[in-house]
Amino acid sequence: MTETEEPRREDGVIVRGPEEVDSSESAHPADTADHLESLELEEQIKFIKRLPVKEAASSIAEMGHQERIELIQRLNLGMASRVLSNMAPDDATDILASLDEELRRRLLARIPPRDRVELRELLTYDPDTAGGVMNTDALVLHQDLDTDQAINLIREQVEDKEIPYYAYVVDDENRLIGVVSLRELMIAPHTMHLEDLIQSQRLISVHHATDQEEVARLISNYNFLALPVVDEEGKFLGVVTVDDVINIIHEEASEDMQSMVGAGMDETTESPWFYSVKKRIPWLLLNMVNSAVAAYVVHLFEDNIAKITILAVLMPVVGNMAGNSGQQALAVMIRQIAVEKFERKKFWLGVIREARIGFVNGMMLGGAIFCVVWVLTQNVALSGVAGAAMWLDMFVGCTAGASIPLMLQELGRDPAQASTIFLTTITDSVGFLSLLSLAGLVLLGG
Amino acid sequence: MTETEEPRREDGVIVRGPEEVDSSESAHPADTADHLESLELEEQIKFIKRLPVKEAASSIAEMGHQERIELIQRLNLGMASRVLSNMAPDDATDILASLDEELRRRLLARIPPRDRVELRELLTYDPDTAGGVMNTDALVLHQDLDTDQAINLIREQVEDKEIPYYAYVVDDENRLIGVVSLRELMIAPHTMHLEDLIQSQRLISVHHATDQEEVARLISNYNFLALPVVDEEGKFLGVVTVDDVINIIHEEASEDMQSMVGAGMDETTESPWFYSVKKRIPWLLLNMVNSAVAAYVVHLFEDNIAKITILAVLMPVVGNMAGNSGQQALAVMIRQIAVEKFERKKFWLGVIREARIGFVNGMMLGGAIFCVVWVLTQNVALSGVAGAAMWLDMFVGCTAGASIPLMLQELGRDPAQASTIFLTTITDSVGFLSLLSLAGLVLLGG
Repeated sequence: MTETEEPRREDGVIVRGPEEVDSSESAHPADTADHLESLELEEQIKFIKRLPVKEAASSIAEMGHQERIELIQRLNLGMASRVLSNMAPDDATDILASLDEELRRRLLARIPPRDRVELRELLTYDPDTAGGVMNTDALVLHQDLDTDQAINLIREQVEDKEIPYYAYVVDDENRLIGVVSLRELMIAPHTMHLEDLIQSQRLISVHHATDQEEVARLISNYNFLALPVVDEEGKFLGVVTVDDVINIIHEEASEDMQSMVGAGMDETTESPWFYSVKKRIPWLLLNMVNSAVAAYVVHLFEDNIAKITILAVLMPVVGNMAGNSGQQALAVMIRQIAVEKFERKKFWLGVIREARIGFVNGMMLGGAIFCVVWVLTQNVALSGVAGAAMWLDMFVGCTAGASIPLMLQELGRDPAQASTIFLTTITDSVGFLSLLSLAGLVLLGG
Repeated sequence: MTETEEPRREDGVIVRGPEEVDSSESAHPADTADHLESLELEEQIKFIKRLPVKEAASSIAEMGHQERIELIQRLNLGMASRVLSNMAPDDATDILASLDEELRRRLLARIPPRDRVELRELLTYDPDTAGGVMNTDALVLHQDLDTDQAINLIREQVEDKEIPYYAYVVDDENRLIGVVSLRELMIAPHTMHLEDLIQSQRLISVHHATDQEEVARLISNYNFLALPVVDEEGKFLGVVTVDDVINIIHEEASEDMQSMVGAGMDETTESPWFYSVKKRIPWLLLNMVNSAVAAYVVHLFEDNIAKITILAVLMPVVGNMAGNSGQQALAVMIRQIAVEKFERKKFWLGVIREARIGFVNGMMLGGAIFCVVWVLTQNVALSGVAGAAMWLDMFVGCTAGASIPLMLQELGRDPAQASTIFLTTITDSVGFLSLLSLAGLVLLGG
């Protein structure tokens, strides 16, 4: 009886029933995976060898990407291939795709032929597409079955399937013609044919080459639990499930935030540190080249700075404010592109919105800097120059911040990639140019 | 027959069956919501009045947050209250919570008493907690029922429920003691009691005050489709479903990216532009105050700049590179906190990792700037000063970028909030201080 036990609480999470333990008799694979990750590699291997192979497979599947690759590489070939063939095919494919050619070949050779054919096929899909994230363990039913036959078949098969709440209805050529949920089957009359059950259904499926972001958007937009994947002829290939979508959304959010500043898209705090060094260096170099533009602008006005050194004090303030203001526009636009379907007109209207915001915020903060400089120097001309340069630059920053991701998107590039680097080049250059040239005109008479 | 129709394709998405149309006989609420959002407010109202109230409710529920609030505010009270009482309680609560006090009171007064009591209760939960996002329309079964009785009850009730794949088992006092899936019910022997079916189950539930991020992490970690929510006494209150989690993850990712640079957490390109102005101004002011620190550092060395104006050219390059490098560390750390459970030791080890990266990248890019400056000026001392300042500042930037979100987290604050603003203050100040003071020592002899 579960009632007699005292539920355990931790941070508002309440767990009743068997304790999660090393022996992992009834532990959830995600918990076993957490436990595994806390161990050294040698310990992991010992632990895995003690587990039944199915449990070992599902636990390794739940580990972080980097961690599970390292573990699989260190298991002996026999063990590794048994684990892979007992894993959901999409997870096994993810792992195999990240191993080097030679090891992959040797592991595949030891996997039973039926699974091998499937894994080989899955390996041909681009990992960022529906084909690359789909699962092939689905309930497939022929259209001629009736409800009772379907329910019996499901009772036999369901244990092995990853998506036990939908069944996919196909015709003689394995073309997908409908989806039924267990709930619909339970409610439907006993001898109704599946064909009739799905008759007026609106069926949404995706081609295997559809981008995973689009798949995630469809599933989250329609609140689906799974979305079927088909080939050119409409033949059923597999399904993408909602838990894959959660991973996709996390992954895309990390990619956006990290690529925005030129960090590696797939970096985590557990990536080897030298991997991060390699990933970031090219973007830092780009940033240096771009900084040279702003530096050149300053160089053109070195004479002015020598005469009015306070300009060097104001330069970083103006550049910094416009950069920050532009990054605000950038962040909102990148998230909008991530969450909503891209509609050209609507998104470009967003640029006008940001231009307005930049104009007003620029005016307010430009006014503020005018006051501060005036209080400190009692020099109205200098204060005016600082205020005007900041106003202009914040306006430009917001407009550029909103435009950069859209331009990258229109060019077919990742809308986030290195966007802050491009933005800073613009805001620094425009800021220094306006501040230093205006100062030359107003304070030094040209 | 669906087979006779030609499937429609668009971007790899294949749709079979009834076309989505204005009359919306069989359109998915998400499509109707898209259609609604493309209309002017007046047109939306006309369109809604033509729909059956249930469809109107589910379509409005699928609209963007801002859009659905505006629409509800413009409907007459009778229509609005009918729509709200036909909506899933969690969506109705979201809308009601965003209306002004007076309108909320008047709408609630017109909602049938049973629904009203429920909505009033839901309104008491913090919107960012399990209680705030949970749904109360769940299948609840008493522990004494047997499988057949349970299936019959489900057949009667299932149409109205939002989560038709799990049923929640409770005791006499409505305390949650187990969960059964439709699949388990289908496979189990006909007369087995639910109590026995759930006997050795490990049940995970959350308290209503649990943060929604924690709920999202549990659901995505365990690949749950739904997670039950209980009160202090373990009484069943409702469930959070996986589609809510997708929204939570999107929301949290937007909040992180936007709050990092001081934009409003909930801004979108459709927010009224003046709303964004108001949200951003305080952070821009903070940024200006922080910039003043860096500006003050420059001010201390104005004499040096007057003598060696090229320092003003190098200043933005050093500040910019260290800022970029620090933002890379910041982005990786913020995403890590978003995706993984917070473990103090592991995360602080991430800071050491970033310090290493900063040290090596700083050395490489510092070396690059040394070469560039030397080529341009043939001045070894100046080149050395520029290289050393950049090296030091990039090292500090990476270390600070990784530490800031952790420190905010330890202080119980949002780890992303204004983090780039704090970071820039540090990188600018340290960069200018090291560049200008080193230049003073080396080039001007102190």
